[in-house]
Amino acid sequence: MTTAPARVRSWWGWGWADEAVPDHECVQLGAALPGPLERPQPVPALADLHLRASRVSPPSSLAHLVTTAVPDRAGHTYGKAYRDVVRALRGQMDAAPDLVAYPANEADIVALLDWAAGANVAVVPYGGGSSVVGGVEYRGDAHAGVLSLDLTGMNRVLEIDHTSLAARIEAGALGPVLEDQLRPHGYTLRHFPQSFEHSTLGGWLATRSGGHYATLHTHIDDFVESLRVVTPAGISESWRLPGSGAGPSPDRLFLGSEGILGVISEAWMRLQRRPDHRRSASVTFASFTDAMRAVRAIAQSGLHPANCRWLDPGEAAMSGAAGDGSSVLVLGVESADHPVDDQLAQLLEVARDHGGTIAAGATEPRATEGRARDEGRDDAAETWRSAFLRMPYMRDAMVRMGAIAETFETATTWDRVDALYHDVVSEMSTAIREVTGAPGMVNCRFTHVYPDGAAPYFTIIAAGRPGRQLAMWDELKAAAMDILSRHRATVTHHHAVGRDHRPGYDRQRPPHFAAVLRAAKATLDPAGILNPGVLIDP
Amino acid sequence: MTTAPARVRSWWGWGWADEAVPDHECVQLGAALPGPLERPQPVPALADLHLRASRVSPPSSLAHLVTTAVPDRAGHTYGKAYRDVVRALRGQMDAAPDLVAYPANEADIVALLDWAAGANVAVVPYGGGSSVVGGVEYRGDAHAGVLSLDLTGMNRVLEIDHTSLAARIEAGALGPVLEDQLRPHGYTLRHFPQSFEHSTLGGWLATRSGGHYATLHTHIDDFVESLRVVTPAGISESWRLPGSGAGPSPDRLFLGSEGILGVISEAWMRLQRRPDHRRSASVTFASFTDAMRAVRAIAQSGLHPANCRWLDPGEAAMSGAAGDGSSVLVLGVESADHPVDDQLAQLLEVARDHGGTIAAGATEPRATEGRARDEGRDDAAETWRSAFLRMPYMRDAMVRMGAIAETFETATTWDRVDALYHDVVSEMSTAIREVTGAPGMVNCRFTHVYPDGAAPYFTIIAAGRPGRQLAMWDELKAAAMDILSRHRATVTHHHAVGRDHRPGYDRQRPPHFAAVLRAAKATLDPAGILNPGVLIDP
Repeated sequence: MTTAPARVRSWWGWGWADEAVPDHECVQLGAALPGPLERPQPVPALADLHLRASRVSPPSSLAHLVTTAVPDRAGHTYGKAYRDVVRALRGQMDAAPDLVAYPANEADIVALLDWAAGANVAVVPYGGGSSVVGGVEYRGDAHAGVLSLDLTGMNRVLEIDHTSLAARIEAGALGPVLEDQLRPHGYTLRHFPQSFEHSTLGGWLATRSGGHYATLHTHIDDFVESLRVVTPAGISESWRLPGSGAGPSPDRLFLGSEGILGVISEAWMRLQRRPDHRRSASVTFASFTDAMRAVRAIAQSGLHPANCRWLDPGEAAMSGAAGDGSSVLVLGVESADHPVDDQLAQLLEVARDHGGTIAAGATEPRATEGRARDEGRDDAAETWRSAFLRMPYMRDAMVRMGAIAETFETATTWDRVDALYHDVVSEMSTAIREVTGAPGMVNCRFTHVYPDGAAPYFTIIAAGRPGRQLAMWDELKAAAMDILSRHRATVTHHHAVGRDHRPGYDRQRPPHFAAVLRAAKATLDPAGILNPGVLIDP
Repeated sequence: MTTAPARVRSWWGWGWADEAVPDHECVQLGAALPGPLERPQPVPALADLHLRASRVSPPSSLAHLVTTAVPDRAGHTYGKAYRDVVRALRGQMDAAPDLVAYPANEADIVALLDWAAGANVAVVPYGGGSSVVGGVEYRGDAHAGVLSLDLTGMNRVLEIDHTSLAARIEAGALGPVLEDQLRPHGYTLRHFPQSFEHSTLGGWLATRSGGHYATLHTHIDDFVESLRVVTPAGISESWRLPGSGAGPSPDRLFLGSEGILGVISEAWMRLQRRPDHRRSASVTFASFTDAMRAVRAIAQSGLHPANCRWLDPGEAAMSGAAGDGSSVLVLGVESADHPVDDQLAQLLEVARDHGGTIAAGATEPRATEGRARDEGRDDAAETWRSAFLRMPYMRDAMVRMGAIAETFETATTWDRVDALYHDVVSEMSTAIREVTGAPGMVNCRFTHVYPDGAAPYFTIIAAGRPGRQLAMWDELKAAAMDILSRHRATVTHHHAVGRDHRPGYDRQRPPHFAAVLRAAKATLDPAGILNPGVLIDP
């Protein structure tokens, strides 16, 4: 069995255990935000958790890969959604897997799937466990037991093709683990979701993760050359190809399949050279209409900024980017090949043409060569990034203070963006008031933009009522999904579907495609053991 | 029934009947190229064709949509592959469909599919009929009859979203028909395959057509917002979305499905504003190694030229671009938003850094505003384009002079490009000598390039032996597919699979994906009537 890393992951909340917000800071946060409690809810001790006895045990040939230890089972019970943290804090661990397995290679996965299929054991593929959509939590009783398949032991960069700028990487590599192996060669995958530290390549691929680039190559999908997938029916591997028109793309079937068709074991991924040239700038807008026109004009300009993050007035105020009711557009450009000053100047010209005010000094270049880590940016961006990565820990602190904190994201075409934004802000504000009895916060930023639309990302913070948080969250989540569906905006741009987004996904997904997915599953996973309940009904 | 257009399509060869190469020019061509005949093989008169009597007839409710007229049946018998033209010239029309249907709307398609499923009639979806891979030719005897479903009556741009730059377009619209409707609004789909005049949006989508852009958005796939597809099991429609991470992409299942899963009836497509700013230039290379490094550096630069066409020495000589054994790189940049001079200058700098010589005067800008048609470019490009569009007519002339003319295209990663290129040129030259007893021509150009690879396009011309051409072509085609497979280069970057590429595709396609495709087909086309034999076995 693979030994655990030296640093310990939180079993109940986000990220590293030693980075959880301390109690006294929780109290401060509760005073500033609508946490109804005076003291943070205590975190149960692992020793106090009552996990059901494991109902299944693997054959002796697999015993070395599998554990029933409480820390492993507790840590693999849930993802990191709001409702996951609430339940963990309550010690509600009914969904704990019977077993956690740590395969070291593909042969281990094959053997585990073979046994599970024969023993009717559900298998939940597990990367970093960062799902916020119930993607790694078994719900149901149709199986003899549940095995959480932790892939993080398979984390090597196996091969680098320096000519084609591509690498063969094991799917269990967490973001930093993967980047640490690419950095000495001058490369980066340049895929930095908020979960970067605590999610894996395989998880990104299985959920069509959204990444670093705000335009052009927004999803991990765009960087895939080929996939290897262990399905219960056998191993499927596509050829490494820069492009092809030979039939429907086999990789696109597995991208977004969220572990129901097979376990992605490795992938050939396109790499980036580490960008030496980087510039960024902020633009403020007094008028919402101007801001929308500017962002749209930039998205349709073909200038392809790497960063194009619009913050609505609430989000701008929260993050300290503006406090006067303005909205803020953060633009970033980068290249490993050529200076990007002109590109930024052109972008700023578009923003200015549409009523934007360029923040003073924002366009100063910064030497980045020789920095130890690639993520260095200008100070404003650095501040944002640090707050951005800290946000999930803050969310956990709010949960402990009894607040309701939820994020959901979507994408829709430009003709619907304005109405969608206003409807979500207004209707969710109303819903919060109705559900919780108090006003709450509804903020929005655009994480990614396209020539034909945008991907708005909403943050909701509201006062919970102790003991009623989950029911309240359920109501708010349902309200959000209803608004998105009504506008035919996607239920998720990059958080995935999992189990929590099924109601919205079931409306969005064409019924005939659901039938095809079911047929694909029956073909590749005839025993129906893989992540049951995700995407389609068993 | 929709009336035929005023201009008549050739029933036996490429394009418009009145643009076929006249006999005396065929003779000149035969003298210059290895056509073994002294006079062109005559084109049979339609009246002399012996088509099998139609074996099936539709119910009276559908009779107005269907014809058994010889010109329609003959014109819909084959695509436009070399072997199609050879057989048509011989009057070998065994594959003639029993019926040709011209639906005017989706309801017509539904009714036709319903009847066909009940009557065990194979249905071959037919757009412009430009397939060069046997994509529209029924082969087999498992059905009571064959209906060719000609979609060109459904050719309207139904809706334009000016905010999101997108349009809802019926799938039967031929390239010029579609562009004629977009042009008055200042838009273009900017998808210009060689078959542009004689292929449809639906055909492009069903075959993952390669288009205008040499980098970035190389395939039609990248411009799809949503699809409507009439399957025998019902109509499937996806939501218009600029991006989504909700499950595997439903559209990607139908993109490349080549008519075996359903009939694409309409699509929301992303549009481009007509580019005002355009520049192009040519660069010559004395050394192959330098040329490859330059093209690769450009593909990896992030400069995204719209055109990046490399011509090997043979291709450069054929097209008049160079005659001294140099290879030539044609670069083009364009934008509707901003000047592109700097972009071209940066590209040329990369090319120069890698040993390229910039052709004098090639970078002069050209006013294009106010031109009646958008396709105007610089003179060299114009010459190329006109020769490019004329090429299929010349191919037919060569066929009539007894020559063998074939093109095939592929894509592979940069680490394999050099070896693939040299192996194809050398082994196909040997194969031509062995198969035909005489030397032939093997030229190559790159049509599209990627950061991680290139898409080489090969042209083969050889002397056929009268009566033996088809067998010779089969041998050469098999040899080409073998080389591609050995290098794990795709059997097709954009010509599609159809029936002729099945041997190569069957090696390339992961077996488990074949199983999923069969399951998808069983779900959507349970009677197995749609384009049987394409992509998978019935």
